[in-house]
Amino acid sequence: MRTFRLVIACPDRVGIVAKVSNFLATYNGWITEASHHSDTQSGWFFMRHEIRADSLPFDLEEFRRAFAPIAREFSMKWRVSDSSELKRVVLMASRESHCLADLLHRWHSGELPCEIPCVISNHDELRSMVEWHGIPYCHVPVDPQDKEPAFAEVSRLIREHAADTVVLARYMQILPPQLCREFAMQVINIHHSFLPSFVGARPYHQASLRGVKLIGATCHYVTEELDAGPIIEQDVVRISHRDSVEDMVRLGKDVEKMVLSRGLRYHLEDRVLVHDNRTVVFA
Amino acid sequence: MRTFRLVIACPDRVGIVAKVSNFLATYNGWITEASHHSDTQSGWFFMRHEIRADSLPFDLEEFRRAFAPIAREFSMKWRVSDSSELKRVVLMASRESHCLADLLHRWHSGELPCEIPCVISNHDELRSMVEWHGIPYCHVPVDPQDKEPAFAEVSRLIREHAADTVVLARYMQILPPQLCREFAMQVINIHHSFLPSFVGARPYHQASLRGVKLIGATCHYVTEELDAGPIIEQDVVRISHRDSVEDMVRLGKDVEKMVLSRGLRYHLEDRVLVHDNRTVVFA
Amino acid sequence: MRTFRLVIACPDRVGIVAKVSNFLATYNGWITEASHHSDTQSGWFFMRHEIRADSLPFDLEEFRRAFAPIAREFSMKWRVSDSSELKRVVLMASRESHCLADLLHRWHSGELPCEIPCVISNHDELRSMVEWHGIPYCHVPVDPQDKEPAFAEVSRLIREHAADTVVLARYMQILPPQLCREFAMQVINIHHSFLPSFVGARPYHQASLRGVKLIGATCHYVTEELDAGPIIEQDVVRISHRDSVEDMVRLGKDVEKMVLSRGLRYHLEDRVLVHDNRTVVFA
Amino acid sequence: MRTFRLVIACPDRVGIVAKVSNFLATYNGWITEASHHSDTQSGWFFMRHEIRADSLPFDLEEFRRAFAPIAREFSMKWRVSDSSELKRVVLMASRESHCLADLLHRWHSGELPCEIPCVISNHDELRSMVEWHGIPYCHVPVDPQDKEPAFAEVSRLIREHAADTVVLARYMQILPPQLCREFAMQVINIHHSFLPSFVGARPYHQASLRGVKLIGATCHYVTEELDAGPIIEQDVVRISHRDSVEDMVRLGKDVEKMVLSRGLRYHLEDRVLVHDNRTVVFA
Repeated sequence: MRTFRLVIACPDRVGIVAKVSNFLATYNGWITEASHHSDTQSGWFFMRHEIRADSLPFDLEEFRRAFAPIAREFSMKWRVSDSSELKRVVLMASRESHCLADLLHRWHSGELPCEIPCVISNHDELRSMVEWHGIPYCHVPVDPQDKEPAFAEVSRLIREHAADTVVLARYMQILPPQLCREFAMQVINIHHSFLPSFVGARPYHQASLRGVKLIGATCHYVTEELDAGPIIEQDVVRISHRDSVEDMVRLGKDVEKMVLSRGLRYHLEDRVLVHDNRTVVFA
Repeated sequence: MRTFRLVIACPDRVGIVAKVSNFLATYNGWITEASHHSDTQSGWFFMRHEIRADSLPFDLEEFRRAFAPIAREFSMKWRVSDSSELKRVVLMASRESHCLADLLHRWHSGELPCEIPCVISNHDELRSMVEWHGIPYCHVPVDPQDKEPAFAEVSRLIREHAADTVVLARYMQILPPQLCREFAMQVINIHHSFLPSFVGARPYHQASLRGVKLIGATCHYVTEELDAGPIIEQDVVRISHRDSVEDMVRLGKDVEKMVLSRGLRYHLEDRVLVHDNRTVVFA
Repeated sequence: MRTFRLVIACPDRVGIVAKVSNFLATYNGWITEASHHSDTQSGWFFMRHEIRADSLPFDLEEFRRAFAPIAREFSMKWRVSDSSELKRVVLMASRESHCLADLLHRWHSGELPCEIPCVISNHDELRSMVEWHGIPYCHVPVDPQDKEPAFAEVSRLIREHAADTVVLARYMQILPPQLCREFAMQVINIHHSFLPSFVGARPYHQASLRGVKLIGATCHYVTEELDAGPIIEQDVVRISHRDSVEDMVRLGKDVEKMVLSRGLRYHLEDRVLVHDNRTVVFA
Repeated sequence: MRTFRLVIACPDRVGIVAKVSNFLATYNGWITEASHHSDTQSGWFFMRHEIRADSLPFDLEEFRRAFAPIAREFSMKWRVSDSSELKRVVLMASRESHCLADLLHRWHSGELPCEIPCVISNHDELRSMVEWHGIPYCHVPVDPQDKEPAFAEVSRLIREHAADTVVLARYMQILPPQLCREFAMQVINIHHSFLPSFVGARPYHQASLRGVKLIGATCHYVTEELDAGPIIEQDVVRISHRDSVEDMVRLGKDVEKMVLSRGLRYHLEDRVLVHDNRTVVFA
């Protein structure tokens, strides 16, 4: 069922819900899902509506025009999207296949509502797997001595493929600040620890040294500060003294896959709002 | 913060949200929480609003009068409650103390928003614990040959204490059909299995025989059919071959306590709507 | 690291551990993992040792000869296997790809210690995916009017490929009793419910009707009685009133994959012992 | 059933299990539980046996004498305890009652195998609750300007009551280094975060600021470095943007209680071995 998704953040005050739902009712909009959140700490209000597109008398452009005065009145940050216009997601990977294979399978079986115009990797190992899915594979090696040309090429590819979203599916390279800024809140990373524990390299080794009893994974938007962007989703799995670092790596893969695919799904369905480096996720 | 809680179920159609939120905006109602749910299978719509009482110009009675025409227009089943009018909860227990002690502690520390006018038990073991909390203890023994007088007394006590809610905190007796009907959707039970598995007596023994790898607990409204009422909350805990039935009983107690207290909390905060023997829980 | 896995079940009595560990110490066996379990209800004792193969002076055949007298003395049911002799696993699937794709990827990335001589399916949809992995695909259609020839062919293929293990990765057909007997405790199924709840067809629909708050999956050995064989592994995922049957199907897929791959891994590593229709899993 | 618990840590080599199980078999020891662990990183071996006391021909003292030569031969750190000699546990609390009430109820209902000679608190609020359980309440106020006299008194009370174990059940004061050293690996703390995240004060506020999607609790032995001692047990609970800091505090309480009671139980049953600031927990 095709829907329009209206996503709003604005300073909280009386009458927002009434104004918006009146607007929708005026045009006979059939609301299939509605979520609100008042954040008492920040004084902001967040709201997401999903409306049957066939119940409305206009397209996305007319919707935007009709809604603009209300948005201005309440100083809203807002967007409206059409569920039938799939987001374009560029996947980036390195040598590890588990997250990439998981996302490709979900996409291939129709579970992940997006288009995947290409996969970018700094290695060539995963080419055959990607190409079996009918997706172009762009091998962009990164020279450790001079990474700049590679990231220029990455940036070019993202723009060339008109991507809305970039997913670092265990890409293992730190994006340069300029790329982070250029695609702010469009780049999603999966970090293989329960942040803020174990930032940076080799988190499973760090976890083993500290002797924790659960390990986790974190899906977050990439910002200039490493592993410090707004968290979209997290989860953990129990381990014990019997589990070596290798066992943690294996067990962690399943958590990484699950957390990344859930987080990406929320993003693709316009369920994530970011405010003050934190997310509201209308799951 | 004192709030009014408006809880609505009605056949789905366009304009419900607009009408209700308009109503609230008209009176400058400050919505602190709003939840909606369209059930596409049944064609019903469910909705709960929490509104700051001090933002509204009327009390509960006037609210009801003002809202009644809207409720009629949309054929709503609805209720509005005042968070400062605490529900009156009669707890019933047998010999096992874990659920009762847990609820009493939560109430005593201010975590559970209710009044507890009395505890009813078919045994006398838990009297001292209850009375330490300053709550009257009513010992109503059940004669296995003739249970009728005991349940008549139970019914009388519930009415005498003007209870809104009865919680069977491991009461271990099956309520007679008449009591189930008299207090429909007011009696909450904790069953020590993951329903619908292991209905009836000795569920941990049944679980051990079947060799399951997780055991659970279920909080549900009591209906005339044993362990078949609408489920409010469930949870599980992992077990292994090492766990004897006694271990399961011990591990299960923690799940029972958690599930019952969560389920009761949802009920006390008017977060549970029942339709077609299933619940909508606006958690 | 190559290991021998010694797996024992016998009536419990004093001296079993001493006898077995003496035997291993006599030959300088380096034990890397040891697990014991005394079942007080049945009076049986279960035990599993993993021993570095290079620490022992003999091969599997000599091990068996040397250990046989001890096994007789204690009336042991026992087996010893070599971790370098990979089990041969025939996968069976229908149209749904999620479990099959998950197992194939784990095998392909070296995570699942087994050989996969072929995949058998009653449909042809998944051929290309399987063949990309370099695994033969056997299409054996099942005639609803006369299933016998298909299952005769299935049985022949299993034997022809010298399979130790058959995995029903959402095969969606009930195996005939004769096949269940022929490959007893060698056929592993994934059932898409938290057994014993929701046996048989369309468990997610059954779960939706009952209004449960968690759904699950169960990995078990196939016996003649439908969905009643020994349970190897189970898990659950939380759902809410917002989740339609389609959502449950989607969420359930992830649980099915995880539970099946964990259960299969236990089986491949000889961690599962069956007694009285229940399992001991030395995870 | 009364058991002896033999707990051993030593450098790994061939023959340890054989030697120990031979020793036990020589005296007809009936092993009810046995757990081993080889840590390949450190090269250490860990082992725990539970043996029916009535199957052995000697008491604890004779056991120690008989076993000493073996312990020397393998350079073992070891201990043997009698399950009927309950550990003496001093509980320390502040104003918050949830952890204390939970432990007291478990003890009172016979679930926690220990004696509780007294409760020490820097406030007087919880006196009545403690005394209802028949346990002496020692009020030791802590002067923020000069904490030394208070901790001298605490140390005196612990020794006077011949405590084996001290539990900081949300005591909210940092123990001085000298106390940490005096009772090394005998003081158990519950920290209200998923360590190593959010060390120190107000972890729920820290968690809220970072926008994590799960919060947790950690049970650990107290060392001189704050919140950095060996972790015994951890767990988490899911939160969302809807949960305020107050909600986190409430939800966290349940995790704290569960994690502390599980960790303490492991300790009381001699299931925890510490090596290199990490624990082996034979749960």
